[in-house]
Amino acid sequence: MSAKHNVFDSFFYPKSVALIGISSDETKFGGRYLKTLREFGFSGEIYPVHPKETEVFGLKVYPTVKDIPNPVDFAIICVPARFVPSVLEDCLEKGIGAAEIFSSGFSEIGEEEGYKLEEELIQKSKKGIRIIGPNCFGVYCPAGGLTLLPGADFSKESGPVGLISQSGGYASEFCRQVKGYGIDLSKGVSYGNACDINESDLLEYFASDVDTKIIVAYLEGPKDGKRFVRALKDVTMKKPVIIWKAGLTHAGARAVSSHTGSLAGEEVIWDTIFTQTGATRVKNLEELLDTTLAFLHLPPSTGRQLAVIGGGGGISVAAADACEQAGLEIHPLPSTLQEQLKAFIPPVGTSIRNPIDVGSPMPPLEVAQKALEIAASDQKVQTLIATQALHTFLSGNPGVFADRGENFVQDSLRLPLDVRDKYGKPIVLVLSIGSTEIEMVKEEKMRREFRDFYFKHGIPVYPTLERAAASVARVAKYYHFKKNR
Amino acid sequence: MSAKHNVFDSFFYPKSVALIGISSDETKFGGRYLKTLREFGFSGEIYPVHPKETEVFGLKVYPTVKDIPNPVDFAIICVPARFVPSVLEDCLEKGIGAAEIFSSGFSEIGEEEGYKLEEELIQKSKKGIRIIGPNCFGVYCPAGGLTLLPGADFSKESGPVGLISQSGGYASEFCRQVKGYGIDLSKGVSYGNACDINESDLLEYFASDVDTKIIVAYLEGPKDGKRFVRALKDVTMKKPVIIWKAGLTHAGARAVSSHTGSLAGEEVIWDTIFTQTGATRVKNLEELLDTTLAFLHLPPSTGRQLAVIGGGGGISVAAADACEQAGLEIHPLPSTLQEQLKAFIPPVGTSIRNPIDVGSPMPPLEVAQKALEIAASDQKVQTLIATQALHTFLSGNPGVFADRGENFVQDSLRLPLDVRDKYGKPIVLVLSIGSTEIEMVKEEKMRREFRDFYFKHGIPVYPTLERAAASVARVAKYYHFKKNR
Repeated sequence: MSAKHNVFDSFFYPKSVALIGISSDETKFGGRYLKTLREFGFSGEIYPVHPKETEVFGLKVYPTVKDIPNPVDFAIICVPARFVPSVLEDCLEKGIGAAEIFSSGFSEIGEEEGYKLEEELIQKSKKGIRIIGPNCFGVYCPAGGLTLLPGADFSKESGPVGLISQSGGYASEFCRQVKGYGIDLSKGVSYGNACDINESDLLEYFASDVDTKIIVAYLEGPKDGKRFVRALKDVTMKKPVIIWKAGLTHAGARAVSSHTGSLAGEEVIWDTIFTQTGATRVKNLEELLDTTLAFLHLPPSTGRQLAVIGGGGGISVAAADACEQAGLEIHPLPSTLQEQLKAFIPPVGTSIRNPIDVGSPMPPLEVAQKALEIAASDQKVQTLIATQALHTFLSGNPGVFADRGENFVQDSLRLPLDVRDKYGKPIVLVLSIGSTEIEMVKEEKMRREFRDFYFKHGIPVYPTLERAAASVARVAKYYHFKKNR
Repeated sequence: MSAKHNVFDSFFYPKSVALIGISSDETKFGGRYLKTLREFGFSGEIYPVHPKETEVFGLKVYPTVKDIPNPVDFAIICVPARFVPSVLEDCLEKGIGAAEIFSSGFSEIGEEEGYKLEEELIQKSKKGIRIIGPNCFGVYCPAGGLTLLPGADFSKESGPVGLISQSGGYASEFCRQVKGYGIDLSKGVSYGNACDINESDLLEYFASDVDTKIIVAYLEGPKDGKRFVRALKDVTMKKPVIIWKAGLTHAGARAVSSHTGSLAGEEVIWDTIFTQTGATRVKNLEELLDTTLAFLHLPPSTGRQLAVIGGGGGISVAAADACEQAGLEIHPLPSTLQEQLKAFIPPVGTSIRNPIDVGSPMPPLEVAQKALEIAASDQKVQTLIATQALHTFLSGNPGVFADRGENFVQDSLRLPLDVRDKYGKPIVLVLSIGSTEIEMVKEEKMRREFRDFYFKHGIPVYPTLERAAASVARVAKYYHFKKNR
């Protein structure tokens, strides 16, 4: 156990790294990675290794790792596939215990030569060096100063989300797109062909990592299915695990085999795995991000019994459809509460049942407040979604605030926070993007500012009701599963 | 038939309108609508009507429509519900043949008084005035200078899309959001409770309207289901009809009844309707817009046999999954074409089957071109989707163009157009939004500029592969149905 943890420390917090296969040519992988790593701000020692170079970007280059005079924690390998086994042998001789291999050209090409080369990596690993990859983008760990390639622009802040990704492209996309969600990562690992370290190792690591509260994964085909499922059952008791399992269609499975040389598995098997383990299933990158956001901010009390508050009748119908399709329940409020709503919501063009339709996307502040409070006060209601009523106007047309008094925007922004805190029930907001014509890009900027205000205050915000409802439903399902098994 | 068409001419191209219930108070519906109509640019005569006003915004106000000295084509009615019957009586006496009633407070409130009032409207209508509404936002017709409320900012250009919407809120949202899709409308009608003119009337009108090529609808519950289905069967032989049928869940149906007083109908019945009529089914506003865009640009030859070209292995897996889930088919390219691809796509970290993964989201232009052309040259391939490979970089990081030569951006932009025209096969693009952090709003602006370039050249662009695939699938399904029934 402790030996293993030491290895992961070398992966995530190395004091010194050897970059093997680095030339001064920035258009090549190695050169670009060195530049990226320095831009990102790695503060440990960097030792470039290349047989023919002497200096790159002002750093001395060593012919092999064995020539480096100081200890090396972590080897980052970018040489062509056929040279990787001998480089690993050098690393073993140097006493390096951890390596990531970016190089492609192994089992994923589906040819004899690739399989043979990958088998050689496995043999080297057994001699005492733990390996991430090959055919991967490696490790992102803001606290350790490490990033993927490309990844100079990733967040340098640490957060509670741990990422496991078989795909380098999606690891990179996830790490980039979280910036628009106010989400930070503890670590992210693109592990590619998993010749040694695989999804089960990473899952177990993240399960015990105190910095990681939520685990997210992009999987194509786990190497050892039984071990993975066993690990998953344990981990979901402690932390939510959100999995995008790709390659479950025929066409997808074919693509998986040429991508990471894995077996994608059957839809029906994965259905069972999700049902039995309590892992949360998503089907694309957007859902992975949306669901992570929901788990980040919503408490274990988040439940399926929903109240939706909006402005406009069609919107209420769509909200009811979307919530029920997502597996949430919208029951009419009890008549006592409906009576309270009747007192201030005009009788025409509105609804006081649930969804509550206050009749206008721009209601007076006290109407929005009373509607939210009455909905929150219902004992059955566990979770609130506020859509349109409070916020379309914020993102749409600042001019309309003029006649509402100077504190209107600030008071409107604060309203959902106050209701959440007063009633102790989670609120999710829908801030729609509206029209995306070029001229509206300034409204989009404003929308993002309001959105970030809510992220900072622990309220998830989505651009559509459908995405909000689906995300709430996944969180409610997980905590229900966890409580009842 | 001709009498009927005259009525629709009065709805869409009135030379003079009476605005009944207009005060100078801009915070009230009537005053706001007058302002909106003038801002939008209605060029005919406007006669405000109000019992207590004499002048609003510089226009003379008449106590009743009967006091207007000139002919009136169209009455726009904003008075409280209880006054509407007598206003209609005045209109009949004045000889006005067409009216829209914005007022709410009729059958949708589910009370005796509302039903009784609506029955009175029906009786008035039978005496010779055709009515849109009540409980609606009325007519948008750029060629006639009419718009909804709110709607001063809607496009003033006419286009080929006709909108039928039971919901005023969604009519308004659709008319606003099309601006970000490069879509223009011939006419849009929010018809609310449909006391007279209903979805079947509008469907038949749009079927014979030469300016309308695509019909889109938001429906809660048609008044006369049999007539509607019969009309639908005919119309889909001539023009695509895209329908968002809301209120099919239990919660949705409850919301429908309090919104427009309609019966929502059963999911299973609507399934059958869609299967039998060839109408295209969508499930929310985003799908309605996405699908309209696809029908606008894609030809009847658009088929299910797909080639997908992208950069990055995980992306290919996700593309394959998304396309097959959407009902499209991705078959491996024949070996002769795979050999051609092999000649210039490096063997590692790529795929030459289908999806074609050129290995990098930023391939050299000639790699992208050859890959697209080889895919397009396959006889089986009917439709192409290009994702990431050509375009992520366009939306992401303009700096990377620097070393690609001065015409790189222009040449990259033109590439899909050239391939489409050379091979006569439709191409759909995925231009992803990427990270949505505030600072990236300038990249979003650039993405919108590129997107609009494609819209102008007849290429649909979507922010995600899932949305592109689903939209292509709906178009392919419609033309397949039309050809084979």
